[in-house]
Amino acid sequence: MDPLIDALERELGRRRDQGLERRRRVVSSRAGPHARVDGAECLAFAGNDYLGLAGDPALARAAADAALAWGVGSTASHLVCGHYAPHETLESELAGYVAPTPGARAVTLSTGYLANLAIVSALADRETEIHADRLNHACLNDGALLARAKLVRYPHADAGALAARLAASRARRRVIATDAVFSMDGDIAPLARLAELAHEHDAWLVVDDAHGFGVLGGGRGTLAELGVSSPRIVLMGTLGKAAGVAGAFVAAHPAVIETIVQTARPYIYTTAAPPMLAQTLLASLGRIRAADDARAHLAALVARFRAGAAGLPWTLADSRTAIQPLIVGGAREASAVSAGLARRGLYVPAIRPPTVPAGTSRLRVSLSAAHGAGDVDRLLAALAAIARGDP
Amino acid sequence: MDPLIDALERELGRRRDQGLERRRRVVSSRAGPHARVDGAECLAFAGNDYLGLAGDPALARAAADAALAWGVGSTASHLVCGHYAPHETLESELAGYVAPTPGARAVTLSTGYLANLAIVSALADRETEIHADRLNHACLNDGALLARAKLVRYPHADAGALAARLAASRARRRVIATDAVFSMDGDIAPLARLAELAHEHDAWLVVDDAHGFGVLGGGRGTLAELGVSSPRIVLMGTLGKAAGVAGAFVAAHPAVIETIVQTARPYIYTTAAPPMLAQTLLASLGRIRAADDARAHLAALVARFRAGAAGLPWTLADSRTAIQPLIVGGAREASAVSAGLARRGLYVPAIRPPTVPAGTSRLRVSLSAAHGAGDVDRLLAALAAIARGDP
Repeated sequence: MDPLIDALERELGRRRDQGLERRRRVVSSRAGPHARVDGAECLAFAGNDYLGLAGDPALARAAADAALAWGVGSTASHLVCGHYAPHETLESELAGYVAPTPGARAVTLSTGYLANLAIVSALADRETEIHADRLNHACLNDGALLARAKLVRYPHADAGALAARLAASRARRRVIATDAVFSMDGDIAPLARLAELAHEHDAWLVVDDAHGFGVLGGGRGTLAELGVSSPRIVLMGTLGKAAGVAGAFVAAHPAVIETIVQTARPYIYTTAAPPMLAQTLLASLGRIRAADDARAHLAALVARFRAGAAGLPWTLADSRTAIQPLIVGGAREASAVSAGLARRGLYVPAIRPPTVPAGTSRLRVSLSAAHGAGDVDRLLAALAAIARGDP
Repeated sequence: MDPLIDALERELGRRRDQGLERRRRVVSSRAGPHARVDGAECLAFAGNDYLGLAGDPALARAAADAALAWGVGSTASHLVCGHYAPHETLESELAGYVAPTPGARAVTLSTGYLANLAIVSALADRETEIHADRLNHACLNDGALLARAKLVRYPHADAGALAARLAASRARRRVIATDAVFSMDGDIAPLARLAELAHEHDAWLVVDDAHGFGVLGGGRGTLAELGVSSPRIVLMGTLGKAAGVAGAFVAAHPAVIETIVQTARPYIYTTAAPPMLAQTLLASLGRIRAADDARAHLAALVARFRAGAAGLPWTLADSRTAIQPLIVGGAREASAVSAGLARRGLYVPAIRPPTVPAGTSRLRVSLSAAHGAGDVDRLLAALAAIARGDP
């Protein structure tokens, strides 16, 4: 045997023994909450398809037309010859729609992870402190490593603690980085106060609105929901969650966007996304603009779930978004509830340490406009049965 | 004005003054060498669409069918509920086809940049030395930063110098990282010798075959071309170049792939690519397997270009791949030749420092099976006219 491979296999074995191994389920049906997973029918409350666009027939038709018109690939990076008319139009439509500051410009990238790396590597360097909310999504932290910046984490949503750290900072450059909607808790960052702190302390404010874009603020996202705008805000939004497709965008003052285009390695050294995806996203953006009914339906599902879950013996997180965590406590207990749901044909992932703090293991219930009221009732009935100790 | 934005604008101005500003051209036609660029017809030798699949009508039809069957998005990461049957089939087909070692497994990611970050973050840590060819593509180096590993660069394709560095290494873990086909030179790494060194010095060998997969080795890539195979090889290939679509794969011993799936943050924390793209890539892989005629045509174009360019006053790089750099020398001179071609409706990018060493500025001529012999002749005639000093 090969000692290098042996070492990897030992480490994989350790993960297995600790119950940390994760398994990929295979979905063999079109995207949507009613799916065929590992060969069995399943009702899922797990994805981020908040408006139900990923499996939408009209959007699939738009994608088919886009493929026939543009072909399947871009052939090169944006700066060589991979930048197509649909990319250009999508950037301009997105900038006008989300508008984190008047006159904003936008740039699109192939994934949200790359977009966050690009933002941080454009704005930060060795002499930069990145002040990050402790519950931020991991990729903002990876951006700090890539930029060789100093990462300072502040207690979750605690603007007072952040203000004290910024006041004490002697760094040449400062960046505040926060999720807008926190992915494992569903709560919303205090963006108005963070924007004030950015102004008081000469800092950029990077806002990751992966879970707000398309849903909050009438679709425009969490900044619009809270009425926050600033030339210091660098907004990242994903296009594979509420938008239903794939990729991400950054919207900000034109100088920020041009700096990403000219200097950010995760942007420069990557093949542009297929123009057919950008064209599909233009159709998706049209749907997002017109999705007030879907957003109202989603809000009604959230209210229905919260009302029904209030009687359960677990703690419902303080969230008004489509992410509705049900905090069970122990890792083993959370896994048991998830397994009980699975036996009833329902899929809700259990989130355990180290993703969340010990003692706060949870079911991450994620709602979508593609769910019906009956789907939520079925979930609530199953949870009640498990709480009663039914097998 | 805002001092943070002022600082960015000053820096952008400096880049402009130094002639380093880059401009995105907008392509407004379907992918292919005959394109409409910034509103004008243009014959391009610039993309990486080596088999002409990006604009292929049958593949566009397959993508349209895939969109209608699977919808437009995956809704989640692979480990939550974004892993679809087409991803699973694509991984298994790719592993069997490229087979860097018997029994290899594969995993797909959304971009090559993410795939390289995932490989390095799975195999390397703070106690790892990454020995990288000096001319490697930038993203392997970014992977080293992300893993907090020590990056040691060795002279281009110099296995002797690498052997000396490995012999002197006291690191706990070692990774050799190399492009298979170098993107700015078109030459091929000494992979057989590097695989021997990996065995002699307990090192992984990471091979980035972005420019070989689909083209060399009857389509299987550079390792197959050279008959190199090893359980220590971790092969990365891109799916947005010869495959014509988007994304990338890693193929290696199953323990390596499982380590990426379980632990690599660029894999775990990112929404899976749309299943319609994986389904389209299955069709593309079928085309690659059957593309012997296209590869023969491409090889004939390479020979035709090399024969014709031999009489030009510039140095043709020692390359037998589709990347045929014409080394002009000074940055200004290379830009002037590129501009002369642009006036004639031809697009060949000039590559200048810092991308290539000073004094070796070049035109990066990139050939595709979608080019005809007449296209190559037109390029050669234009180069000859510019060499003669025609306006």
